Formats: sequence, C-alpha cells, structure tokens
Amino acid sequence: MAPPFPARARILLTAHELFYRDGIRATGIDRVIAESGVAKLTFYRHFPSKNELVREFLEYRHRRWMAWFVDALQRHGGNSKALVPALAEWFGNGDYRGCAFINSVGELGETLPEVMEITRRHKQDMADAIGKLLPASRQRKRQAMDLALAVDGAIVRAQFDESPEAALASLERIRKSLLGSGRSAPPPAVRPMRS
Amino acid sequence: MAPPFPARARILLTAHELFYRDGIRATGIDRVIAESGVAKLTFYRHFPSKNELVREFLEYRHRRWMAWFVDALQRHGGNSKALVPALAEWFGNGDYRGCAFINSVGELGETLPEVMEITRRHKQDMADAIGKLLPASRQRKRQAMDLALAVDGAIVRAQFDESPEAALASLERIRKSLLGSGRSAPPPAVRPMRS
Repeated sequence: MAPPFPARARILLTAHELFYRDGIRATGIDRVIAESGVAKLTFYRHFPSKNELVREFLEYRHRRWMAWFVDALQRHGGNSKALVPALAEWFGNGDYRGCAFINSVGELGETLPEVMEITRRHKQDMADAIGKLLPASRQRKRQAMDLALAVDGAIVRAQFDESPEAALASLERIRKSLLGSGRSAPPPAVRPMRS
Repeated sequence: MAPPFPARARILLTAHELFYRDGIRATGIDRVIAESGVAKLTFYRHFPSKNELVREFLEYRHRRWMAWFVDALQRHGGNSKALVPALAEWFGNGDYRGCAFINSVGELGETLPEVMEITRRHKQDMADAIGKLLPASRQRKRQAMDLALAVDGAIVRAQFDESPEAALASLERIRKSLLGSGRSAPPPAVRPMRS
C-alpha cells in the first residue's frame, strides 16, 4: 500500500495556496486536483467533499500561522513590543491577503458553520499568544483580548491600504496606550494624570 | 419612455440584500434578476456586467451605511462616547454579517481592483465621521485613524463571536485609553504618569 501522506500533503498545500490567494468559492475542486497532480480518486479518498477540504485547509492554516506567529514574537523579543515588527513581516509579504479566517467568515458566513467555530478557536489562540507577551497581572487576559481586537483591525486595514505603515503605526499607538509605557508597566489608572 | 429609476432601484436593493447576506460569488446574476422581478433585458440595460453591479452595490452600500452611521452617532450624543452604542445597534441586528467592504476585499481581493479603492474611500469617510466626534487638537486626525482601526477590529470580531459584547467592551477600553478620560480630554502624554 502506498503511504497516504504525500498525496494528502500535496493536496493541502495546493488548496492552501489557492484558497488563500483566490478565495474559497473561486477555487473549484478540479483546479485543486489538477494543480496538486493527484488522481481524482486519490483526492476523493482523502477529501470526500469540498467542505471537508475547506475544514482541513483551515486547520492546516491555523497550525501553520500559529507556528509562524509564536516564532516571530520570540524572534522580536518576546514581549508586547514584538507585536508590530512580527506583523510587519507578514503584512510586508507580497502574498499577503489578510487573515484566512476573517476572509472565510466573510465569504462563507453561515453556509459552513464550522468556519465560525474554527475562527473563534484560532482567534482565542492568537489572543493567548499575545497574552504570553504581557506581564502577569489581573488585567492580562483583558489586555490580550483588547490587543487581539486591535491586531484584527490592523490585519484588515493592511489588506486594503496601499501600504501597511498606517495600520502598524495605529496598532503601536493602541498597544502603548493600553499598556501604559509599552514596556512591562501596568496600564495607566482609569483617569490618567494630565500634564 | 418608462422612468428608469424603479427597476434600477429594485435591482440594487435586491443585490444589496443577496450580496451582503450570501456573498458576491455565491449570488448569481440570474438570482438577482429573478428576485428583483425585472426583465432580463432591463437588467442588462442598467448593469451590462456583474462587475458593474458589484461596483454599484458598493457605492449604494457606502451611501446607506454612512447615512446610518452619522445619524446613529448624533442620536447617541455626537461625541466619541457615541461610538460603542451606535455600533451596538448594528452588531445587534439579526442580519449583521460584518462590513460589506471588508467582506468584499476578502472575497474578491485583486480580481476587481475597484473594490480596494472604494473600500479605502469608505474607510476614510468612516474615519472622518469619527474625527468629527473628537475635540479639535493636533492629534485629532491620528486619533480618528486609530479609533477607525479599532472599529474595524470590533466589526470583524462581532462577526464571528457568539455575542458582540466582548468586541464592544474591548473597543470601549481602547477608546478610553486612546482619548485619556474618554470625554473631551486630550490623550495622555507620550509617557503617562504612573501611580
């Protein structure tokens, strides 16, 4: 029996490239089959339906994106200041087309309910990775959620703006104002002192 | 000669409903024609191609959404505190499916370049409307941009979260921390004083 992995991996890589670049509805199964170079029967043995492939694509994307994100945050210092330079790597990539999960929710909505659930899980993991950059405090979880929301704002903005600079600058200002000094300081009191 | 407006308006309303709810690629021209109840010839006289209809849909959506947004901000007090209750009206709507522009960029990407341009214009107008809520200052434009980015984050988050509460709470915390007291106060100095 031939090992099942090479064909499956090839299909997933191809689907990942096409779905992310062109969108899910714009990408027919036949194109995925042709470009991954597998036999039709082999394809359907691994993915009995397109929905199955979409789900596996999102799970694959999730693992791949999280691995990159966690690594990039560490490479840039492992504290909250790493957020903007890490995202700058991604936004500056010529293939950048925004967040595969946000795009899928926008494109598929309720027609494939698992998309919503996988997206919530993905964004929770993203927020958890952001939380690990922050000093321990009672507000850490909340700060991570707020930063994750601002990151989503920067992700979509960098998708339609002509350059990602403005999105990154806004995100950095939001990070600084949420965290106080932007280092490991606690956030400012509810009513910050004014000079 | 029959007045051209009723048919055109009916087509646009129908396209708006279907494109927003089901997505642009999922909605065929034939469905728009059938549901708007116009003759095929009439349709093609107004919209020679689907791309034409997509562009007009986005322009229509832009006018309609901006009119609602500006009105809601005024109804909620006309200062930056109006942002969250205004968006809560929208997010709480049963038909809520996120931002039509963000969704279109995610779905169509570069395949219809005008989508990017219309979206940038829409988001600039949204930021300008937010800027009008803020007291005059040197930072007003920048604060409006930062708030607009956080609003985009809240828009996508409310689209996949089970309830919009968390998105609205994050947005409110970001608003307060960016603007200082959340009233008409200037933002805290670059390095806020700590207690």
